[in-house]
Amino acid sequence: MTPVSDRNHRITFQRRPQGLPAPGDFGADTTPIPAPGPGQFLSRTVWLSLDPYYRNVMKGTQMYAEGVKPGDVMIGDTVAQIIESRHTDYRAGEFVRVRNGWQEYALSSGHDVRKLDPAAAPVSTALGVLGMPGITGYAGLVYLGEPKPGETVVVSAATGAVGTTAGQVARLVGARAVGIAGSDEKCNFAVRELGYEACVNYKKGDLAAQLKEACPRGIDVYFDNVGGDTLQAVLRNLALHARVVLCGMIESYSLEQPPPGPFLGPVVGARATMRGLVVYDHMHRMDELVRVVGGWIRAGTFRYREDITEGLSQAPEAFCRLMRGENFGKALVRVSAEHN
Amino acid sequence: MTPVSDRNHRITFQRRPQGLPAPGDFGADTTPIPAPGPGQFLSRTVWLSLDPYYRNVMKGTQMYAEGVKPGDVMIGDTVAQIIESRHTDYRAGEFVRVRNGWQEYALSSGHDVRKLDPAAAPVSTALGVLGMPGITGYAGLVYLGEPKPGETVVVSAATGAVGTTAGQVARLVGARAVGIAGSDEKCNFAVRELGYEACVNYKKGDLAAQLKEACPRGIDVYFDNVGGDTLQAVLRNLALHARVVLCGMIESYSLEQPPPGPFLGPVVGARATMRGLVVYDHMHRMDELVRVVGGWIRAGTFRYREDITEGLSQAPEAFCRLMRGENFGKALVRVSAEHN
Repeated sequence: MTPVSDRNHRITFQRRPQGLPAPGDFGADTTPIPAPGPGQFLSRTVWLSLDPYYRNVMKGTQMYAEGVKPGDVMIGDTVAQIIESRHTDYRAGEFVRVRNGWQEYALSSGHDVRKLDPAAAPVSTALGVLGMPGITGYAGLVYLGEPKPGETVVVSAATGAVGTTAGQVARLVGARAVGIAGSDEKCNFAVRELGYEACVNYKKGDLAAQLKEACPRGIDVYFDNVGGDTLQAVLRNLALHARVVLCGMIESYSLEQPPPGPFLGPVVGARATMRGLVVYDHMHRMDELVRVVGGWIRAGTFRYREDITEGLSQAPEAFCRLMRGENFGKALVRVSAEHN
Repeated sequence: MTPVSDRNHRITFQRRPQGLPAPGDFGADTTPIPAPGPGQFLSRTVWLSLDPYYRNVMKGTQMYAEGVKPGDVMIGDTVAQIIESRHTDYRAGEFVRVRNGWQEYALSSGHDVRKLDPAAAPVSTALGVLGMPGITGYAGLVYLGEPKPGETVVVSAATGAVGTTAGQVARLVGARAVGIAGSDEKCNFAVRELGYEACVNYKKGDLAAQLKEACPRGIDVYFDNVGGDTLQAVLRNLALHARVVLCGMIESYSLEQPPPGPFLGPVVGARATMRGLVVYDHMHRMDELVRVVGGWIRAGTFRYREDITEGLSQAPEAFCRLMRGENFGKALVRVSAEHN
C-alpha cells in the first residue's frame, strides 16, 4: 500500500488550556512521511479517538507520564492500517490499534499495539466499546460492581462510551439498568436504543427524588462516571450491600482545584475499597470475640482501660463528659457492687 | 439475694439536648422495685455503659426504634446480677449483660440477654472490649478491613473502646498499628499500653503530613471512627488496594445537619462497598471483552453510537465540543478511509 499524500499532517499541542480547552490551544503542521527501520512498521491513521483524559495530558498532570510540550504532536489513541512493515509480526494491510497521536502517519515498534480483525467487528470499535472505554465499563461493572440478575444498576454518563458498555452489560447479565444523562435526547436514546429500563435527566429537578422513583427498591450497583453532586444523590438511594464503582470524575478534569464536597479521587488512585460497618450484622460473632480476645486478655497481650464513674446519680454528668470527648477509656458507671 | 434498697432509683430523659447534652437534659426519680412474674427475672444493675449512640436516642432519630419520651427511664446497656428468677434458664447470683437502662433494678424476659462468666474476664468487659465496642472493632477490622501481616493499619479514636480493640487486633494478627488520637496523653497510652507502633495527635498540625511520616509505605487499612477531616487526611495517604472501614461518625452525632465535606453516612447505613477503578488493572481482560461484547454486537443485542468528525484538521474543534459535553456517542475523528 502507498501513502495517499506525500506529507504527514499533524495537530500539535500549542498551550495549556485555561478552563475548557479552545481550538487555539492547538496548532497544525506537516512533516515528511517517515520510513520504517528494521523492526518497525509505518501505519496510516484511520480513526483518531477523542477522550477526556487528553485534557489532563494538556495540563501536564503527573498522573500521565506522557505530558506534551508546545509544538509536540498531540498524543492520542488511534486505529491505523499498516502501509509498510519491517516487523516480522505485522504486514501491510492489517489493522491495528496503535497510539499514533493526532497525525496521519506514524512509525511503531509494535509496543502497545493490538491487531484487529475487521470481520469480528468494525475496527472503530477498538477505540470505543471494544477498546479502553469498553474494558472500563465491562471489567469495572463485572469485576468491581458484581451485578446479580434482578438487581438495579445505575450508570451515570449513561450514553457515553463507558456508560454505553456498563449499562448494556448490566442488562445482558440480567440486571435492571437505570441511566443518568444530561438531556431528554440522551435519555430517550438510552432507553430506546441501549435498553436501559429508565433514564433520569439530571438537569430536570431533584436528582435524588427522581432516582428514588426510578429505583423503588434502592440502587444495588452504581457505576460512577462523574462524581460530585450526582454521586451524593445516588448515595442517598443505596440498597443494602450496594457496590459503588468509582470510575471517571470528568467534572474535575477542567478544574484546577478538587471540587467541593466528597472528593474521592484518592480512592480511585489507590484502587481502594470503602465499606460501611454496622455492628448488628456481626452479633453472631460474639462467641468468637469472647474466645479470641478473651484469650488474649487472659494471656496478658491485650489491654483495655475503663473510665469509671461511681454511682447512678453521677451518670448524666459522666455522659456529658463523654460527649465532650473528655473520657479516657470505656465510660462505665458503677451502679452497685458485684457480689461473688 | 435481696435488694440493697427498698426503692428503685432511676435517671430519666427530660428534654432533647441542643448541641452537646447537659445534665439538665436528665431527671431522676424512684419507683417500687418490681417483682418477677412467670418467665421473668429481676436483676440489679452493676455496671451501666455510657455510649455516644445515646445522644441519637435523645434526638429521636429514626435509626434507633427505641426513642424516649420525657419522663421515661433512659435506655442503656448494663451488666447486672440476678436477684430473683422465675425464668428456667437463669438463677439468682448469675451475671448477665442486659439492657436495664439507667436504673438500679429491672425485670427481663431473657430477650437480648447474654450470660457472663466472671472467671473468663471481668464482667465489665461485656460492655467494652468483649461487648458491643469490642465486636465492632474486632469484626469490623477482621472481616471488613482484612489486615494482612506486615500491613499498616490506621485507627482513629485509637484509645476509645472500639479503637482499643481494632488497634490491638491489628497488632496481634501481625499488622503495624498506627493510632490517631486527640491528646499527647492518649497517644502515649496508645503506644505504651496498647502496643500501637505510633500514634498521631490530630490537634498538632497537618494530619496528612503526620500520617505520611508515620506510614511511609501508605495506609493499607483505615478503621474510621470519626469521619470528617480525619477521613480526608487518611484518604490522601492510602496504599494501593487499601480498605477503609467506615464505622463511627461521632463528630456528626451532636449536629443537626450533616457536616460539610464527604458525608458517607449513607454508605454505612447501606453496608455499601465503594471501589476505585483504574482501567489499566484490567487490560488482561481485553480478549474477554472482544469475545463477550463482540459476540453480543454480532448477535445484535448490544448497540453503540459513534459521534464522527471528518478530517484531522477538525479534531481540535471536535475535542473542545467533547469537553463541553456536546458530543453524543463515542467521539471519533475519521483521519483517512479504510481499505479492505
